Amino acid sequence: MTVKRILSGMRPTGRLHIGHLSVLENWVELQKDHQCFFFVAYWHALTTAFDRTAGIKENTREMVTDWLAVGLDPEKSVIFVQADVPETAELNLLFSMITPLGWLYRVPTYKDQVRQFKEQGRDIMTHGFLGYPVLMAADILLYRADGVPVGEDQLPHLELCRELARRFNHLYRPVFPEPRAELSRITVLPGVDGRKMSKSYANDIGIIAETEEIGQRVNAMITDPARIRKTDPGHPEVCLVHTYHDIYTRDRLAEIEEDCRAGRVGCVACKKLLAGSLERVLGPLRERRRQIAARPGYVEEVLAEGARRARAEAAKTMELVREAMGI
Amino acid sequence: MTVKRILSGMRPTGRLHIGHLSVLENWVELQKDHQCFFFVAYWHALTTAFDRTAGIKENTREMVTDWLAVGLDPEKSVIFVQADVPETAELNLLFSMITPLGWLYRVPTYKDQVRQFKEQGRDIMTHGFLGYPVLMAADILLYRADGVPVGEDQLPHLELCRELARRFNHLYRPVFPEPRAELSRITVLPGVDGRKMSKSYANDIGIIAETEEIGQRVNAMITDPARIRKTDPGHPEVCLVHTYHDIYTRDRLAEIEEDCRAGRVGCVACKKLLAGSLERVLGPLRERRRQIAARPGYVEEVLAEGARRARAEAAKTMELVREAMGI
Ligand code: SF4
Ligand code: SF4
Repeated sequence: MTVKRILSGMRPTGRLHIGHLSVLENWVELQKDHQCFFFVAYWHALTTAFDRTAGIKENTREMVTDWLAVGLDPEKSVIFVQADVPETAELNLLFSMITPLGWLYRVPTYKDQVRQFKEQGRDIMTHGFLGYPVLMAADILLYRADGVPVGEDQLPHLELCRELARRFNHLYRPVFPEPRAELSRITVLPGVDGRKMSKSYANDIGIIAETEEIGQRVNAMITDPARIRKTDPGHPEVCLVHTYHDIYTRDRLAEIEEDCRAGRVGCVACKKLLAGSLERVLGPLRERRRQIAARPGYVEEVLAEGARRARAEAAKTMELVREAMGI
Repeated sequence: MTVKRILSGMRPTGRLHIGHLSVLENWVELQKDHQCFFFVAYWHALTTAFDRTAGIKENTREMVTDWLAVGLDPEKSVIFVQADVPETAELNLLFSMITPLGWLYRVPTYKDQVRQFKEQGRDIMTHGFLGYPVLMAADILLYRADGVPVGEDQLPHLELCRELARRFNHLYRPVFPEPRAELSRITVLPGVDGRKMSKSYANDIGIIAETEEIGQRVNAMITDPARIRKTDPGHPEVCLVHTYHDIYTRDRLAEIEEDCRAGRVGCVACKKLLAGSLERVLGPLRERRRQIAARPGYVEEVLAEGARRARAEAAKTMELVREAMGI
């Protein structure tokens, strides 16, 4: 049995928050028995933010440092920046020629996103945004990946990628495997104010947040509004602190729930407990990140070596592609 | 005053016919006092013929050999294949992100061509075909050309290219000049059956046609249908042979017209005269082509050197582009 090849990427959003942790933990898990390609989706970021490119370089550096802190291993996995592999743009162009417009307009997220952005007064109806799934297919197929970890919302994109692989194989010659969806249990953790966690809402907890920052963010969490005094019986199911305990204090969850319902513990104490749980997880990450950041040029080296390995694979695929097309 | 930079390209259609001569003569003329980039529009060919890629390599070789025979000078001009400059695909992708779909749907030729192909039972409504003007803009702006020789029908494409240059310069930082249209008098020569000249109609005269082939093709030309006998007065204005004389026997045109109208010359003799005129032009081309084809590896060398020079310029532009975008 050959080792399966997995590809996954993330847009360069800068420092990550704990909402990203479950995706990254999944990557670390996959890394154990797959050949993994993890990339910074540099150009993808432009599809919706072509007019906001400031900081993209610095964000890439910060994010990759976080990846390494969490445990992505550059010895095992190929960690690289999309834009360092120009073959991606070439394959994107070739795929673009064989992608019917109808396929792209039918992707359910297309219309949704166009509308969402319009509500913010922004127009993203560009040729590049429409072609986002083509670029994604080029990313995946350039490495002839067997599997792609995706959330439910990305299934239509992956389906289009598989259709493109079939169409290419049929028009020219079989070159591409049809990559499969690796569905994984990804927990969506809300921000400390209950909304979607996002740096722009300032409701996030950075994965390498300092102890003090963790405490502040946890203190800001909304608990059961019906509880005024410590002795009032609480309802953990409506409390955000409880949602977090469910992930970070799993071993004592039953006890926490009981104490809350019985009015035996105050919210302040309960939050302190959570801050401690978070510290236990984030402390070591913070320490690892410190070590990585202390090695000057290390992240750059990792990315250069990743680009080298990625390009070697990309070159092989492009050779096959050109041969198949006779170009 | 700096030397202006000109860019122009042709799809790899294989051996050229005399219908292409006037474009090529224009290139040879431009070459004298401009810095010219002439490229084989390799990827453009895929926008309308992604399913017909066979022979594209051989066609490129044949066409470039013809270019050299006609007088394109690789010492003066940069002669290269689009696909040898991967930076083109990268700039195309970046431009694609800032090109509103509306701009592309409004290009008048888009709907026309889609309809024309539909009548032939072919569907070319792909993401790549819609993006054809974006790719063309990338071709031109990658070399920061000042001028582009275009026919009337390509003016809307050039206008879009200029708009894209403006948009980029405005969104990020001024990088691109707005290339100007170099309108030139291009003669459209009909095929020997009066229809559009095209290899697929077998109504063309190759620019390096052998003497015998020239004779056959000229003999097939339709003359004034009212002339039965040599002494019947003819009407040169309705005669295809005359159209050709107008280009190839210009110095004796008045005499030919008079003799025809007066019924002093037969169509057979008149055609022989034309065959002679064509031979005078095509003979030397044929000989030059023979010499070029006799140098093994010469065309490949020209294209390799052209690619090297083109990529050097492309790299400079991409440096500016990435800097301007901050990526
Ligand atoms: S005790 Fe804990 S679980 Fe109960 S409401 Fe307070 S913070 Fe939430
Ligand atoms: S004499 Fe010459 S110009 Fe006149 S009809 Fe015949 S071929 Fe044409």
